[in-house]
This record gives sequence, structure tokens and C-alpha cells, in this order.
Amino acid sequence: MMLRTDESTTTLLTSSKLASLRKKMQEQTLDAMIITHLPNIRWLTNFSGSNAVLILTAEQSWLITDGRYSEQVKTEVEHAEPFITSDGYIEELRAGKFLSQGSSSVKPCRTGVQGDKLSYTAFQALKEALPGAELVPLISFCDAFIAVKDADELSRMKQAVAITDKVFDKLLDMISPDVTEREVAAEISYWNKRFGGEKDAFDPIVASGERGALPHARPSNEKIRNNSLVVIDMGCVVGGYCSDQTRTVAVGKISDEAKKIYNLVLEAHLLGIRSAKPEMTGKELDGIVREFFAAHGYGEAFGHSLGHSIGIEVHQSPIIGRKSETNIPAGSVITIEPGLYLAGKFGVRIEDMVYVTNDGATPLPSAPKQLIEL
Amino acid sequence: MMLRTDESTTTLLTSSKLASLRKKMQEQTLDAMIITHLPNIRWLTNFSGSNAVLILTAEQSWLITDGRYSEQVKTEVEHAEPFITSDGYIEELRAGKFLSQGSSSVKPCRTGVQGDKLSYTAFQALKEALPGAELVPLISFCDAFIAVKDADELSRMKQAVAITDKVFDKLLDMISPDVTEREVAAEISYWNKRFGGEKDAFDPIVASGERGALPHARPSNEKIRNNSLVVIDMGCVVGGYCSDQTRTVAVGKISDEAKKIYNLVLEAHLLGIRSAKPEMTGKELDGIVREFFAAHGYGEAFGHSLGHSIGIEVHQSPIIGRKSETNIPAGSVITIEPGLYLAGKFGVRIEDMVYVTNDGATPLPSAPKQLIEL
Repeated sequence: MMLRTDESTTTLLTSSKLASLRKKMQEQTLDAMIITHLPNIRWLTNFSGSNAVLILTAEQSWLITDGRYSEQVKTEVEHAEPFITSDGYIEELRAGKFLSQGSSSVKPCRTGVQGDKLSYTAFQALKEALPGAELVPLISFCDAFIAVKDADELSRMKQAVAITDKVFDKLLDMISPDVTEREVAAEISYWNKRFGGEKDAFDPIVASGERGALPHARPSNEKIRNNSLVVIDMGCVVGGYCSDQTRTVAVGKISDEAKKIYNLVLEAHLLGIRSAKPEMTGKELDGIVREFFAAHGYGEAFGHSLGHSIGIEVHQSPIIGRKSETNIPAGSVITIEPGLYLAGKFGVRIEDMVYVTNDGATPLPSAPKQLIEL
Repeated sequence: MMLRTDESTTTLLTSSKLASLRKKMQEQTLDAMIITHLPNIRWLTNFSGSNAVLILTAEQSWLITDGRYSEQVKTEVEHAEPFITSDGYIEELRAGKFLSQGSSSVKPCRTGVQGDKLSYTAFQALKEALPGAELVPLISFCDAFIAVKDADELSRMKQAVAITDKVFDKLLDMISPDVTEREVAAEISYWNKRFGGEKDAFDPIVASGERGALPHARPSNEKIRNNSLVVIDMGCVVGGYCSDQTRTVAVGKISDEAKKIYNLVLEAHLLGIRSAKPEMTGKELDGIVREFFAAHGYGEAFGHSLGHSIGIEVHQSPIIGRKSETNIPAGSVITIEPGLYLAGKFGVRIEDMVYVTNDGATPLPSAPKQLIEL
């Protein structure tokens, strides 16, 4: 079944986001672009389903999905003409849809694809389906545009952070040596939705005692340790946009070493926020905090990147890490999340989302960061 | 940093699953195989992190991941030697690790890759990094093995279904026109963890009234409709393995049409279970139920596949759908989930997981399926 929009809606088949991509298409002399990465499609069209491909030409845009979404596309899709098929987009292209002279005036020579978001097998199938086209594999095609948030996107992310803060308050009432890590995680998932989030932005991390030294620990059925630290990393989704925040709190009396490490991580976190400037590379910003830890003798205990851009996906480009040569643009939202992990003892991570502008970087309003002792 | 296991653990670097893959490698005269699909890696090695690649030769197996997991690999990884790097596996291969004469006795000519689970860009980078190798892109390399469950896998899935049933009981106590779809979804996510699941197997679907006609609706902030049906599709994860179950319940008095459709879907569901036999194709089984609906005049209202295999991933091969030529093997667990969707009115879907054996198909013990009226 093919859903054609009315003539009257034709003017909606563009947006400033699409215009940016079309400009880039023009610069690269592309006649068409095939977007296969779902979060990019959501960013461009608002479609939230689990199967879609977006095909762009200079004038047209089609969102191709399957029959499960034939109702949803009617209310959700913006700036693209929905097309329902059970055959998949490659078969439709093979049959001459979209990019042949049949349904469009454009007969493309050069068709861009997301080389890093398309399987090798799909690339080969596309090549076979479009023998007349020159397929141009491109990397990070949408990334630079996606990193910069508009007012609406920023507002959704602020709402998501506000929910995360309310959830954190709820947790402070219930974290104790009487509950398990997974029970805390259950509260996070519950309140994320009860406070208005669509869902968890990622599986929450609740890691107590020596499990806190595993940066990506999954919540276990073990009780929260007394006289130790617990790392809580969580986020939710509002209007498709994520929050991501980490706090480390003390339960009972903690050692002087734990307090010292906490304060060192907090200092590093604030240093990261102060240092964040537009047009720095991810590597430069990461390096400032990494050197700080190294100068205090804890270089080895900081095993991950300082942060990452965030939006529809939790982890977006630019990554704020050792190897990232990508600039952090003004208008982006990034996380600053230094952590120190002492194997067999405990871990500390403190993370905020910050909005990077030409005036510096501001954390989205968030929970307090001084050590909380429960 | 490289983590080398002791000599004494070398004998653990295989398993019956790895043996099956190595036999297939031999049949295809492959000297090495690079597994890039995370759920396949979890299936083979038990590693649950978010970044990993598994490299297999006839005698060796390496699990390559990054520093976030340097502790986790020690307790979690089976049948492979963990290797930590911040450079990524392609750079390590370029530097001569694993597949050159340096760290292994094998100098491969033919190296298999998962063509459908590797991006075009990564494939090209690999080709460049391994100029001496012939890269062989393979499709569905692990699928046939993964579809057949062993006793341990079946036991985890039964535990997951048992939790889903307990969650369903909780929902029956709280579903009413006073609560929103999202509040019901919050309970699902909460009880999934409280009853011992690791997390939701997928975002729960709670779709009331005419929203039930959207097969993949996301839970909204609208209240559950009175005198209508609500579709609840949910699952959890135990030991990495998923459950997936759908029930449709009536809230208040529902129309005769709704009752008729409910009973038709139930009949179709039971027909699907009765008809499932090993070595049928997905298409054959799907066709039996599709014809049943068509014979009752509702062919158009069944817009998705009848089901799918399930395990570490919710949707695995074989798919039980119109185009699936893949056989359903004895020992597989599949879902049977017919549904009818009347746009603007309501939807009904009933889904169980069934274990397919040579003696027929048995649902994993599950919640009752007669219409429940709340």
C-alpha cells in the first residue's frame, strides 16, 4: 500500500534540518541520499518506529517503513512522504521507485549512503538494485548538524534532566543497606515514566562498593554496601531526547581515601565544565582533565572518555575522548563525566550535561554535587 | 593493556557452541572468523558489555573490548581470551595482532566476517588493515545454531516468562480507567526488575482503545479507555535471555464486535500453536494463520508477521512471516502472536512463546488466554 500525502502538504516536505543536509548533498554533488540510521531519521522526520529508511533528493523526501506503522506515520512523520511496503526499500528501489524516472523527475548518478550506518551486505544489495547509480559511502553524514541543538531540542533535554533530578530525590529516600542495587534500578525505571519520561535513556547503572569500580556494571541482586560509595548513572527520554547524569553518594561512614577520591573527581568535573569552549577538539578537553588526574597520581584510574555529545542518542559525536579530533560546536550539549575506579575498593563518577555556548559551558540545571552521606 | 589468561585456562577456550562454528568455518575453508554482532558474542562467551569483537581461529578465540570492561571480562568471559585495547580491533589487526604470524601460528588467507552485521565502512577498513587476507562476507553465520536452545537457555527463558506472568497478575490489580498507559508501563518496568529480571526485554507496549490498532504504539499519557480493550505486550530478561508475551484485556463492557475479534484472534493463536512443527518454513506456519483470518474476512487487518524466534535477542531468525523460507528447527523457541487491528476502533493481539519439538509445540507456561474483563 502506498500512502500519498495530499498536494496541499507538499510544502511541508522540507525543514531547516533537511535544508542543511541538502546543502551538503549539493556540495558533494549528490543527486540523492539514503539515510539508514534510525536516530538520524527521527531527528529529521520525528518518526519513532523501529524500521525506516529516508530517501532524499533535492526536492523530495520519502520515509519508507512497514505495515506495523501505517497508522503511526500519519500522525508522526514530518517533512517526508510516508511510504509503506512489506518488501523493504531496496526492493522498491530495484522496482524503480523513488530514484528512477518513474516516480521522480530525478535520475540519479550519484547517490550518497551512510557507509558507517549500513551493513556491507545491504550496500552490495543496493549496488545491485541501482545499477545506474554511483553509490557514494559517506561517514558521519549528519553528525555535525545533529550536534547543534535548537531551542526545541534543548527544551526537551532540560525536561529530561528535570525528571532525572526528581528521580534522584526519590532515590535518596530509599537507598540504604536494606535494598539491592536492582531494587534501586527498578525505582529509577518506574519514576522515569511516572514523572513523564517516555522510557529509560539507557539501562541504569547502580553499583555499590567494589562493584562501583566497574564503570559499566549492571545492577546486581546484592544489597547496597554499608560504609561505602554507590555510583548511580541514569537518564530518561522526553520527546525522543535523552538525559544522562551520574551521582555518587555515600552510605554510612566512608574512608578518608573515598572522600579524597570523591573530592578529586568533583574537582575534575568542575574543571571540565570550566574548560569547555566551543571549537575545542574532544581530545583537548579530555586532555585537560586527564592531565589533572595524572598530576594527582591517578592517571591510570580514569579508564574511559571524559564525555560525549548527547541528543536523540545517548552517545553522539563528538566524543570527548583521547582520540577525538572533532570540534565541539557552539550550541551542543555534552556530558562531563570524569571517574576514578579503584579495583576491589570503589568507584566515583560525577556527570552533568552541559550546554556549550560562546559564553562558556553551563550545566543543565541538575542535582547537587557535594558529597551526600546517607 | 593485554589481559592474558593463565596457561591452565587454555582448555576453556572452546565450547560446543564454538565447536559448531568452527565446524562451519572448516566447511567454508575459513582460517579465521570475525564475529561483530554483540548478541552473538554474548551467546558464545557470556560477555554482556556494549563493545566487543570476537576473533576465532581453529584453535584460538579472543574477545576484544575496551578499558571500561577490564574488570568485567575477568568474571564474565568464557571460552575466549579477553584483550583490552583503546585502539579498536581493526587497529590491533593492522598492527599484526591475532591473525598475523606474530601472536598466532595461523596466517590466514580466508577470514570470514558477518557481512550483515558489519558496516560497509568497517569492512573497507578491515580490508585495508588485512591486505594479505581474503575477506569473506557471510550472512546469518550464527543464526541456525542460535535458534536451537539448550537446556540452560530454555531454563532462563522459562524463568523470564514466569516473571512476565507475575507482572501480568500485578497489572490486573491496577489497570482501570483511572490510570494512564504510561503508568501501566511504569509498573511493568518496575516489577520486571523487582521480580528478578535484569531489565525490560523491550519497551513495553500498553495501547488502549483505538491506540490498540497501532501494533507498535508507545504508551501515552492518556487514561485507559473504559468499555474498550487494552493490548499489553511485554517481556523481561533473565541471564541475558528474553521473554515476550502479549495479552489483550477488556476494561468495562466491550462491544460484541470486540468480543468476536478477540475470540477470532484467540482461535488463530491456538491454531498457530497446534500447527507449529519442526522443519516447516516460517512462511508455511505464517500462511496457515493468515489464511484463517482471510477466510473470516479479516485478511487485511493482520498487518504483521505471525511471530519470530527469540533468545538473547527478542527478534531472531527464523522469522515466522510471509517471506521466511527458513526452517523452524526442533529445539527452537518462537512466538505465536496473531493480531487484528481495526483502525479507529481497537486492536487485539495474543502472544505466547512456544517450544518447538518433534512432538509438537508447547507454550512456555503462561498467563490465561480467555478474555479477562476488568
